Amino acid sequence: MDAGQASFDSGAFRRTMGMFTTGVTIITARARDGERIGVTANSFSSVSLDPPLVLWSLAKSARSLDVFTGADHFAIHILSAGQEDLSNRFASRGEDKFAGLAVDDGLGGTPLLADCSARMQCRTVHRYEGGDHIIFVGEVVDLVSSDDTPLVFQAGKYALAARKSSGEPLVASALVGSDFNEDFLGYLLWRARFQFAAQLKKDAAIRAFTDNAFLLLVTLAHNNWRSADSLALTMFIDEDVADTTRALAELEVMGLLERRTAENGEALVGLNDVGMERALAALAAAKATEAAFIDKLGLWDSTALKNLLRGFIDATDPGVPHPWVRLEGEASGVAQALD
Amino acid sequence: MDAGQASFDSGAFRRTMGMFTTGVTIITARARDGERIGVTANSFSSVSLDPPLVLWSLAKSARSLDVFTGADHFAIHILSAGQEDLSNRFASRGEDKFAGLAVDDGLGGTPLLADCSARMQCRTVHRYEGGDHIIFVGEVVDLVSSDDTPLVFQAGKYALAARKSSGEPLVASALVGSDFNEDFLGYLLWRARFQFAAQLKKDAAIRAFTDNAFLLLVTLAHNNWRSADSLALTMFIDEDVADTTRALAELEVMGLLERRTAENGEALVGLNDVGMERALAALAAAKATEAAFIDKLGLWDSTALKNLLRGFIDATDPGVPHPWVRLEGEASGVAQALD
Repeated sequence: MDAGQASFDSGAFRRTMGMFTTGVTIITARARDGERIGVTANSFSSVSLDPPLVLWSLAKSARSLDVFTGADHFAIHILSAGQEDLSNRFASRGEDKFAGLAVDDGLGGTPLLADCSARMQCRTVHRYEGGDHIIFVGEVVDLVSSDDTPLVFQAGKYALAARKSSGEPLVASALVGSDFNEDFLGYLLWRARFQFAAQLKKDAAIRAFTDNAFLLLVTLAHNNWRSADSLALTMFIDEDVADTTRALAELEVMGLLERRTAENGEALVGLNDVGMERALAALAAAKATEAAFIDKLGLWDSTALKNLLRGFIDATDPGVPHPWVRLEGEASGVAQALD
Repeated sequence: MDAGQASFDSGAFRRTMGMFTTGVTIITARARDGERIGVTANSFSSVSLDPPLVLWSLAKSARSLDVFTGADHFAIHILSAGQEDLSNRFASRGEDKFAGLAVDDGLGGTPLLADCSARMQCRTVHRYEGGDHIIFVGEVVDLVSSDDTPLVFQAGKYALAARKSSGEPLVASALVGSDFNEDFLGYLLWRARFQFAAQLKKDAAIRAFTDNAFLLLVTLAHNNWRSADSLALTMFIDEDVADTTRALAELEVMGLLERRTAENGEALVGLNDVGMERALAALAAAKATEAAFIDKLGLWDSTALKNLLRGFIDATDPGVPHPWVRLEGEASGVAQALD
């Protein structure tokens, strides 16, 4: 390969740049004629601590180049996880990107956006040549930050980041003749749910129920008066009939569940008033348990964990309805069920 | 606030910079005297597509400043998730940071490291003033990349990023009088494990067992000849005795489990040869299922999910031993148990 002669195409260059994970920023300025401009950029980088300098790059072909070049100030907004739509809006060529947004005026009238992870107001100190881009270096003169989970960009997609956990094995285990170990995803899911359930059980409002009865209680609280068959379909996989029967009997013996017949003759089960009250108390206790877990794990990692579990559930959906969704064709609702 | 007058201290500036997520790079060069140098930096940014330019910043106080200033070439390595130790090594002031590493020679003798997510060789084209740092702009003349999960840095800690899942609710559910919803962490854990288990059950080697019997089988495969009491303690939370009894009976009826007495008189259960064979077949099937799931979710997100579940399990450990770890004081091992 000859030095100085690129041996790759621009697609390969873009893909390689995408391997470097970044946050997402929106950078704003005020034109001399008063127009507010803003662009989405991930070319942000911190430069210097003393003086506090940061930089970012803008394409020479950008329509906003003249305004940024002429502006004494600009503001950099580090976007939070909830601002994906805002990122898309400022990445496209909209007429007025600020329409409908709550915008404050900063130094030199620079538009300031709300609800970001962090925001810096900068005074332009250098504009450097950078190929088809201009590198803007600004001195940070004001900053604010929040605890909001930052939005991340990696390999061309929005992402969330979470703290890398220690490399220590959870359990020391080497099973001869198998590469099965504690890093098995099924084990991690099982154990995480086990620990969540163990904590739930510490609350008296939940301890009263077996796992399956609690699941049945929550399911009926969301959608009361269901057929036992449809419950078995959505709640359990294999041992459905026996497990459903046991869980139904458990709630019935406790005086929380009743049986009715739908207009179409289908046998329905549902929580009575006492059962619904107990269900809401159990759900409140569950929310409190979740809050304690989120506290332990930290808000950012909890957000990232929920995000990934949702992604996993989406990607591996076996086509089994979620338990508290009424099945299509299932005798529906209180109207038929109530006497 | 006066423009141009910083209203914050350097700690606040650093913390705000940390809100901008980055990858982690190691940047290397060869001194004129032949010495190899390298530093860890997250101030990397892409600049221009045509020509392909990138930049990074180095403190003027850095010992390696003169070498980088005098070098015609440098190499940027975007680190992968497994290179945290390498990052730490090049971030510290070691005598020979390259000791023991496999290092190739690049353009101008630039040291090239292996196993990165991506690597670029650059020709220095600009050196710009940047406060207490120098901004190096390089033209990329060669690049290689891999599929390895990139290492991430956020808020001063190593992290992993995962694709942001759609904001669509998994199930539409609004429960009157409760803020409990499908985003409840306990539900997400339950549902993810449910879907994993549903897929496991499709394999004949696993379908033969109830959930609890499968768990017991795996547990004994890792650590055979345990007391039923200790199994109940680690495998189940509440309905321990009945569940353990059922699972033990299930394996016994299938002719896979036997009972023995330890030297100290404790009653032990264990898999016989047939049971162990069935366990290894089930574990192999489980690994195959996991591989299919990882394929669906993608390697990066799977790595991030495992990382977060490990973090969750670490952070919320209730002190209950993992099932396949022998309890302290538990009659131990095959020696006593075997006749």
